[in-house]
Amino acid sequence: MAIAGVVMAGFLCAPSLPGQEGKMPSLMPAPSAMQLGSGALKIDSSFGIALTGYTEGRLERARQRFLVQLGRQTGLLITVQGSDPTKATLLVHTGHASKEIQDVSEDESYTLEVTPSGAKLEAANALGTLRGLQTFLQLVEASPEGFAAPAVVIKDQPRFPWRGLLIDSSRHFIPVEVLKRNLDGMEAVKLNVFHCHLSDNQGFRVESKKLPKLHKLGSGGAYYSQSEIRDLVAYARDRGIRIVPEFDMPGHSSAWMVGYPEIASTPGPFKIDEEWGVLDPAMDPTNEKTYKLLDTFIGEMAKLFPDHYFHIGGDEVNGKAWDANAKIQEFRKAHNYKTNDELQAYFSQRVQKLVTKHGKAAIGWDEIFVPGAPKDIVIHSWRGSKSLAAAAKQGYRGILSNGYYIDLMWSAARHYAVDPLSGDAANLSEEEKKLVLGGEATMWSEYVNGENIDSRIWPRTAAIAERLWSPQSVTDVNSMYVRMEMVSEKLEWLGLTHRSHYRLMLQRMAGPASPEEFAALRTLTDVLEPVKDYTRWETMSAHPITTTPLNRIVDAVPPESDKARQFDGTVTAFINGSCRDVSIVKQVSSQLAAWRDNDAGVQSLALKSSYVKEVARSSQDLAGVASAGLQALDASAQNKSLSDESKKQLTATIAAAAKAKAQLLVIPAASVQKLVDAAATGGACSAKP
Amino acid sequence: MAIAGVVMAGFLCAPSLPGQEGKMPSLMPAPSAMQLGSGALKIDSSFGIALTGYTEGRLERARQRFLVQLGRQTGLLITVQGSDPTKATLLVHTGHASKEIQDVSEDESYTLEVTPSGAKLEAANALGTLRGLQTFLQLVEASPEGFAAPAVVIKDQPRFPWRGLLIDSSRHFIPVEVLKRNLDGMEAVKLNVFHCHLSDNQGFRVESKKLPKLHKLGSGGAYYSQSEIRDLVAYARDRGIRIVPEFDMPGHSSAWMVGYPEIASTPGPFKIDEEWGVLDPAMDPTNEKTYKLLDTFIGEMAKLFPDHYFHIGGDEVNGKAWDANAKIQEFRKAHNYKTNDELQAYFSQRVQKLVTKHGKAAIGWDEIFVPGAPKDIVIHSWRGSKSLAAAAKQGYRGILSNGYYIDLMWSAARHYAVDPLSGDAANLSEEEKKLVLGGEATMWSEYVNGENIDSRIWPRTAAIAERLWSPQSVTDVNSMYVRMEMVSEKLEWLGLTHRSHYRLMLQRMAGPASPEEFAALRTLTDVLEPVKDYTRWETMSAHPITTTPLNRIVDAVPPESDKARQFDGTVTAFINGSCRDVSIVKQVSSQLAAWRDNDAGVQSLALKSSYVKEVARSSQDLAGVASAGLQALDASAQNKSLSDESKKQLTATIAAAAKAKAQLLVIPAASVQKLVDAAATGGACSAKP
Repeated sequence: MAIAGVVMAGFLCAPSLPGQEGKMPSLMPAPSAMQLGSGALKIDSSFGIALTGYTEGRLERARQRFLVQLGRQTGLLITVQGSDPTKATLLVHTGHASKEIQDVSEDESYTLEVTPSGAKLEAANALGTLRGLQTFLQLVEASPEGFAAPAVVIKDQPRFPWRGLLIDSSRHFIPVEVLKRNLDGMEAVKLNVFHCHLSDNQGFRVESKKLPKLHKLGSGGAYYSQSEIRDLVAYARDRGIRIVPEFDMPGHSSAWMVGYPEIASTPGPFKIDEEWGVLDPAMDPTNEKTYKLLDTFIGEMAKLFPDHYFHIGGDEVNGKAWDANAKIQEFRKAHNYKTNDELQAYFSQRVQKLVTKHGKAAIGWDEIFVPGAPKDIVIHSWRGSKSLAAAAKQGYRGILSNGYYIDLMWSAARHYAVDPLSGDAANLSEEEKKLVLGGEATMWSEYVNGENIDSRIWPRTAAIAERLWSPQSVTDVNSMYVRMEMVSEKLEWLGLTHRSHYRLMLQRMAGPASPEEFAALRTLTDVLEPVKDYTRWETMSAHPITTTPLNRIVDAVPPESDKARQFDGTVTAFINGSCRDVSIVKQVSSQLAAWRDNDAGVQSLALKSSYVKEVARSSQDLAGVASAGLQALDASAQNKSLSDESKKQLTATIAAAAKAKAQLLVIPAASVQKLVDAAATGGACSAKP
Repeated sequence: MAIAGVVMAGFLCAPSLPGQEGKMPSLMPAPSAMQLGSGALKIDSSFGIALTGYTEGRLERARQRFLVQLGRQTGLLITVQGSDPTKATLLVHTGHASKEIQDVSEDESYTLEVTPSGAKLEAANALGTLRGLQTFLQLVEASPEGFAAPAVVIKDQPRFPWRGLLIDSSRHFIPVEVLKRNLDGMEAVKLNVFHCHLSDNQGFRVESKKLPKLHKLGSGGAYYSQSEIRDLVAYARDRGIRIVPEFDMPGHSSAWMVGYPEIASTPGPFKIDEEWGVLDPAMDPTNEKTYKLLDTFIGEMAKLFPDHYFHIGGDEVNGKAWDANAKIQEFRKAHNYKTNDELQAYFSQRVQKLVTKHGKAAIGWDEIFVPGAPKDIVIHSWRGSKSLAAAAKQGYRGILSNGYYIDLMWSAARHYAVDPLSGDAANLSEEEKKLVLGGEATMWSEYVNGENIDSRIWPRTAAIAERLWSPQSVTDVNSMYVRMEMVSEKLEWLGLTHRSHYRLMLQRMAGPASPEEFAALRTLTDVLEPVKDYTRWETMSAHPITTTPLNRIVDAVPPESDKARQFDGTVTAFINGSCRDVSIVKQVSSQLAAWRDNDAGVQSLALKSSYVKEVARSSQDLAGVASAGLQALDASAQNKSLSDESKKQLTATIAAAAKAKAQLLVIPAASVQKLVDAAATGGACSAKP
């Protein structure tokens, strides 16, 4: 392993990044620099790993966890033996401890060398070691000689220090074991902040010993005990992950007021909200009782959550509760606050002082960025890079979530394209850019519960994790998808259910299906996606989210259809000149024929199950889209242009099919429209740009 | 719900049994009597269940478990509310308690009526209630109006009182959580005995406080603590399942002697065996130390395991250790034992007395049935119904496992055809037949571990469970498969991994596969089965089972290929006169074409993964078989007979392909041979019987 020095010196200047798939290992996030060697390190049951240099309990646990995980990933009889450097296949050297309470500014870099005879991981501190171990696990893959890790030299460190995932446990309670497996997933893709959204209108989810009516009356019995939280914090720390708690205020706070109506702006009684939306209840910012209660509460929580940051929410106060309260209006007048926003600024200042008093720094949504805010606060931007840039120009730090709202059912590619330093932030000075700490994927839980949450988080969050870790130049979408697919498979060995739940939920809905009917349903749903953005919410007249089962097809299908994406790739290849390539033509036409002929099976099953009946129209739509595609293909095959009339008719069919039904979209519609457009201009081949 | 009396009176005489699929609910085991009503009971979030009559903690826990399971199966927001009869959808009435220590003779009968307005479950005791609850869960299915249970009246009781599953935790240690989810599966199909094979040459798996070297030196650290056992016993009792422990002696006992070589027949030291087979080490039956140690041990275990039965093994002593010991030979001569079998009989008598002394009845393999054995012993027959019948004729009770060895990779149909009262046992008198208590599926663990064990047990064990519960007349194999498929899906909601593990293991082996390559691999492995009986063992020169990873394709594919079975059904339909049915012809030919064209994808993946390379030959074989089938089909289509020469050639191709490679069989070979045979006699249609 003496080669390291030599190789490293050369390749650090010219980082070799993914893009040469088939050769390069499927790492995600891509490391900042990587150079492939020759040969591979064979992984077998004799595999051992030893810790040298600085050690601690956490590293020893990480070592054991690594071996268990390697055993799962390979099915080899990897035993958890002692840490003996003379027998180690992977030799780990850690320089020193990381901070007791993990800090946003800590070094997470590491170097990893793999040669056919062994591997060596070096890191300045324990965090870097944790990161490097995950890289090694991703390197291990089936090979012509059993499992192996390719010879490689990696020098890696994150681009941003704050790489987070928010899980909203309020709107639907998410059980602790689900959080834990997601923490495992976060570790695998090198995320380092778990943002726990713990209170909202629909539930207060943490036990408070000082203000017990918060969880007793505000949770419907579904909350985390303090010992569970302590356990979770330790679990996260073991994985190099900080836990930032959020208690949203002064809005999004009905659940507080069920137990403590005295802090509300309007008379109670209050109830835990079942509906979703920007609701009216808000804390009374003019009442000293409010601050007294918050002082007590923040003091208690500041001890429970060791992280330096305390998220105070602050978003979406509609002001109605304040307008309705004469005393509050008087206060506003007396203080010369022209708007409710100014009143909220007053509230924010008061709360930020309480957070400071208890030894923490406040983080909150854009709204908390108010004049005179302490310089150590962090702006959490749901609005976008504009507000991040504005804050940075005034010396404030910020993180981005706009563009990373994974509840909106966007494609991984769309999230992947969002860069915290794009837009206004791209024009910041280098010093100002450093104030942009990173970002967080946000898993708002209106339409997720413990059953389907994994499939909404994974694998797309791996793409966001790469955006936040890897060099800004890593942007190849095709490479991203290939690697994300590999990582997605590995994530299943952590117990994540992002793939398995879909089949199970579908089976449940298909109940009495014959094998053929079930196959037809699956063929259909494999190319359906849930509607995007807030369409599901907007198209419903009522939003009783906590009392509505999440057991429909829209709740089961993944946010992004792999099958439809692959088909679109084939269509694009066809149009871009491969229309004479028999294998490409056959791929497109046989797929279209399969979709065209798929409807009968779905329709017969729809008669047996109301859940399947919901997609009966989508099934017809898919068949119609496929027929349209076949007509376009026919024209291309005959080297004829589609007539204007035909084009118009097919386009109308496709447009009608592309409209959402049962909150689902028939995704191949867009690809087929491309075929039609190409055929209308003289056959696909002539449409080549 | 007053209809019960009327309906029941009529239908008990004329049990209406499954066979009318599509109408009849998919229950497994089939109830002894069932009559379908009209309409269905809608299941929604308001579902409630109340216990009346006798209640106890176990029933309340069962009620809560039922609601949780109903929530999982439906995705509805079923809440675990109180037991309020006025709000109950399902009203349960239990007559009285069952015995504190569950007995083999207890009543397990129940009646269940479902009407569109509610359901009623009645049972004489708590065990019947547990059984009836599982029947209700199986009734619930997606319907045109959401989830529903069909209106039905069921009167049910088991045919045999001893319906077991043996899990061998010795050859591979099976973690407690895996046992628990299998107990859940057992409850779902109304099995009532969990037979825990706890010691063998390869490991001693229970903590002994009195003889701690047993588990400390005999387990390699993998054993169940006494508190885990107590927890498991309680878990099983909650589900109406007895736990019968087995400690195999005097053979299959190397693991005992690692810690206590003084009870061995040959000088030590001994080690935990890694190899599988009938090994030499045996306890010394002539040494009083042996009985003293067994007295202590049985006394301790008799307290730990409350069940009345204590399994003492007794199988497969090869006698070599006894022959090699002069002292033992002297003893034999002194006692005038002509054979080692007679010496073993002496040992059995001594051990049976110890079992009796500690308040238990002995159960053991055929070998323990020796002259003068106490009348309360149970003969566990691995040899077959002949020995069961012989025992019954002498007034001894017995259970059958011959034919239920699920480690032999037989089809469900083959196990299903085995009846404990067939063969010699069929000729027993009615009184003697009552001595045949039932049977046990045996999951010997040479080739299973915690990862793949579920897939070897389920769903086939459900077919055995039906054989042991349902009337002897329930024998329709097609009905069995349809219902087994439905039950198999529901079992997944208990956390069983019998379906999910296969894809995961395959992905692991396919590592760097493209989606197309993975699909090709899956198409192949979907019609491969592991070799049957002891072929895997017989074809290996060495059998280091505990040190060999179980991560190959033979370890992943299910014991029985659904796809191949379905194809065989289509081929049979084709031959039996549907050869003019275009849809049948198309099904057969398109399936064959898909297999013929599948090889390229597997071969390209085989270059990347040694695990896939193992099936490269099988992939060629499948393609060859498919081509042969297409030739036969061509002949049929042209109404021509295959020439003798062609038949000979195709038959040779198929026979070569049918030979096991990498311990795997290409199952469609047999179906294609049928096509060839039919085509050789003038085309399929003319081959109609």
